[in-house]
Amino acid sequence: MPSAPRVLFDDGSHKVLCFDQLVTGDGVQSNQFLIIDGDQHALLDPGGDLTYMPLSLALSRHIPLRDLTYVFASHQDPDIISSLDKWFLHTNCQVVCSTLWARFLPHLSAGFLTQASGLSTTERMVAVPDRGQDIPLGKSVIKALPAHFLHSVGNLQFYDPVSGILFSGDMGASMVDDADPVTDFAAHVGTMEGFHRRYMCGNKVCRLWANMVRQLKPKMIVPQHGRAFVGPAMVNEFLDWISQLQCGMDLMEQDDYQIP
Amino acid sequence: MPSAPRVLFDDGSHKVLCFDQLVTGDGVQSNQFLIIDGDQHALLDPGGDLTYMPLSLALSRHIPLRDLTYVFASHQDPDIISSLDKWFLHTNCQVVCSTLWARFLPHLSAGFLTQASGLSTTERMVAVPDRGQDIPLGKSVIKALPAHFLHSVGNLQFYDPVSGILFSGDMGASMVDDADPVTDFAAHVGTMEGFHRRYMCGNKVCRLWANMVRQLKPKMIVPQHGRAFVGPAMVNEFLDWISQLQCGMDLMEQDDYQIP
Repeated sequence: MPSAPRVLFDDGSHKVLCFDQLVTGDGVQSNQFLIIDGDQHALLDPGGDLTYMPLSLALSRHIPLRDLTYVFASHQDPDIISSLDKWFLHTNCQVVCSTLWARFLPHLSAGFLTQASGLSTTERMVAVPDRGQDIPLGKSVIKALPAHFLHSVGNLQFYDPVSGILFSGDMGASMVDDADPVTDFAAHVGTMEGFHRRYMCGNKVCRLWANMVRQLKPKMIVPQHGRAFVGPAMVNEFLDWISQLQCGMDLMEQDDYQIP
Repeated sequence: MPSAPRVLFDDGSHKVLCFDQLVTGDGVQSNQFLIIDGDQHALLDPGGDLTYMPLSLALSRHIPLRDLTYVFASHQDPDIISSLDKWFLHTNCQVVCSTLWARFLPHLSAGFLTQASGLSTTERMVAVPDRGQDIPLGKSVIKALPAHFLHSVGNLQFYDPVSGILFSGDMGASMVDDADPVTDFAAHVGTMEGFHRRYMCGNKVCRLWANMVRQLKPKMIVPQHGRAFVGPAMVNEFLDWISQLQCGMDLMEQDDYQIP
């Protein structure tokens, strides 16, 4: 069954699932995550129309789809949240996103859908301020953490204290076809380096973010594309690497801004 | 007629139209642009499902919709290009976008649509390299210019040498409800400042971009949200202002990256 998820954590009442095999065709490989705590559920970075159908089918094996509590969106990209209108229409979810995108995400939904549902898009959004906030989920809490400019100017990450998993969005993303844990960091760097050098905005914010994550001490860092960093040694190797990476604006010069 | 566009340029064979009244409801005000040269046409930053219906109706008064030549996307945001699947389905257009988003935009389109049309999303994309490129349009050429990190990490702007108009995307955007030309720059700054300080990635790239635009000498800078800068004096006032603005990563400190 290709849509069988990886079980990242399960203590009976709290469960974390990773779907890593639902993207087919031209789109970049992406992981989608479901956190279940009792009778509440959060779906992380569900993607766009490309994954809506396989993902909603896969989810319905684990939760009553209509009762989905939240969609968490790390940022505004097509592979993150462009299926917003369908989740609004087919479930009762609220969408948790940065306050920077609260007035942009309504562009994803046709006016007639909004009118038919009788609820404005804005009323179903939890607009998280830049400093982040705690989101209650069942008997647990998910932390929405600041990760701005990594890569989006208004970027959130989500941390689940029960499982110890940091869902890092594009940070740590690798261009591979599955979500297996990384076993050899040095060999893995080549699948991350080009992406991080071009898509992350600069070394300064990488360092500020890594300092915060060192305090958080996550058991696992799981990006939205590619492989996971599991255990303190591997987590630290990643944080050390990203802390020293020159990227984004650091590398831009006047030659990069010329009339073609 | 609320959807009647502003005519920004018209010499008989080359025409530029601005639609500034099509966004209703919760979404941020946005301008959409149509460039016509002979029997070819480029639609700039058409937006998402929120504007697809009113915009396609408005366009069909000016061009045969099926024959739309291009959709130009400055970046990957919902208010820019999330209606991609509908333009692919209902017109023969190619989509011009940064090479950074070529593997992300396919997430906007359901697999069954791609299969039904018999063409992969990727084959209908013109992926522009970071240095920019010229795009032929009728007897003219539109320049796709680098504007990376303003705000998107892979950001293009489009310059039309015939009309002298620079379509600047989010650069110069103002939070107002129309696209009237700016008449009093000092009074206008308040409608731009908060947005540029938070959404633009840093002063360095603002300066590199402004240096390029000074060489381009556009007659008009027209952003995707709000008002236009018309004439050399107003264009220079904007370039001077943005060149000295501290923004984005410049303003971020460790306090902004803390566990909430």
